[in-house]
Amino acid sequence: MTGLFITFEGGDGVGKTTQAALLQEWLEQQGRTVVRTREPGGTEVGVLIRDIVLHHRGEVAPRAEALLYAADRAHHVASVVRPALERGEVVIQDRYFDSSVAYQGAGRVLDADEVRGLSLWATGGLLPDATILLDLDHAAARARLDADDKPFDRLEAEEGAFHDRVREAFLALAAAEPERFVVVDAARDAGSIAAVIREFVAARLR
Amino acid sequence: MTGLFITFEGGDGVGKTTQAALLQEWLEQQGRTVVRTREPGGTEVGVLIRDIVLHHRGEVAPRAEALLYAADRAHHVASVVRPALERGEVVIQDRYFDSSVAYQGAGRVLDADEVRGLSLWATGGLLPDATILLDLDHAAARARLDADDKPFDRLEAEEGAFHDRVREAFLALAAAEPERFVVVDAARDAGSIAAVIREFVAARLR
Repeated sequence: MTGLFITFEGGDGVGKTTQAALLQEWLEQQGRTVVRTREPGGTEVGVLIRDIVLHHRGEVAPRAEALLYAADRAHHVASVVRPALERGEVVIQDRYFDSSVAYQGAGRVLDADEVRGLSLWATGGLLPDATILLDLDHAAARARLDADDKPFDRLEAEEGAFHDRVREAFLALAAAEPERFVVVDAARDAGSIAAVIREFVAARLR
Repeated sequence: MTGLFITFEGGDGVGKTTQAALLQEWLEQQGRTVVRTREPGGTEVGVLIRDIVLHHRGEVAPRAEALLYAADRAHHVASVVRPALERGEVVIQDRYFDSSVAYQGAGRVLDADEVRGLSLWATGGLLPDATILLDLDHAAARARLDADDKPFDRLEAEEGAFHDRVREAFLALAAAEPERFVVVDAARDAGSIAAVIREFVAARLR
């Protein structure tokens, strides 16, 4: 068996964690070994970086923010993702470089191609085999986050217009790489979404 | 008056801090406003980054390390260096991107041009007006650090051969940009070194 690298993308509150858990369960029933991980913060070093990016009071310069995400990614890919893929395992990852491109490149002030180039340098060019974009209107995502009653982090506290731009950026990335992406309407019930994702991943495993 | 950006480079223990303090004192006597700063760790965000790079137990992936230094640099330049230069002040900085190129590019496993490119992207292309390289044999620098009885950080604990390669890399950078660099023999007494540096900086101020 060869490794498979699957990423989940989309804004906060769209259900990435729930769907990643369901996919892991199904893959393990198929006899696959699964590593579930996340960015930022998928390693001990990454947790420290995540604290700086998400919880620092006061502004972090935009290029510094992009570089911190890239640093987390470099360490995470080198120490977690590549070793698992080399062992022939399935890696399911919550957020990867599409998030950086969508949030930093399109949503912020930086050039999207430069941000993408930074991530590719950080990872030695590692692309996912399959990327699942959970697409949801910002107001619906907001309502889910409110229902969870979790404290805001710095990105969640950005205004709605910012999140709309990020959503459009994700959809544009998916449209540009239809072979790698599947876009799933995250307003549907969790069971239907999981079925679509299983079908998409099953095709990659065959 | 226009701003002037002066950087000090060289290994640990060569006397950068002492000479930066003497230069600041002299410039202030000339009526200049001086901002003295350092990388990594010249900002609040930078202190957090410095902690990760220098004091994390266990390995940090090489590209992650380079990206963390670049992140510190991006934030530091945007929030400290550029504002001071725009106010017409003199910035004296302990280490800048030449350190990254020497330590990461030449001393480690990464391509020196890529590391330089990363720093230039981080800073929007800000080059120093003048760079002072304090050059010292590793054994002599080691003896000074031992005399100070300071605890080792991760880079200081590297073997002597590594520090020799870094020293050669610094000298090569200085040779490639003779207009920007002055190389000073750091084995001389502090007063003689300070006199050479004052002469070099005075020429830039005229």
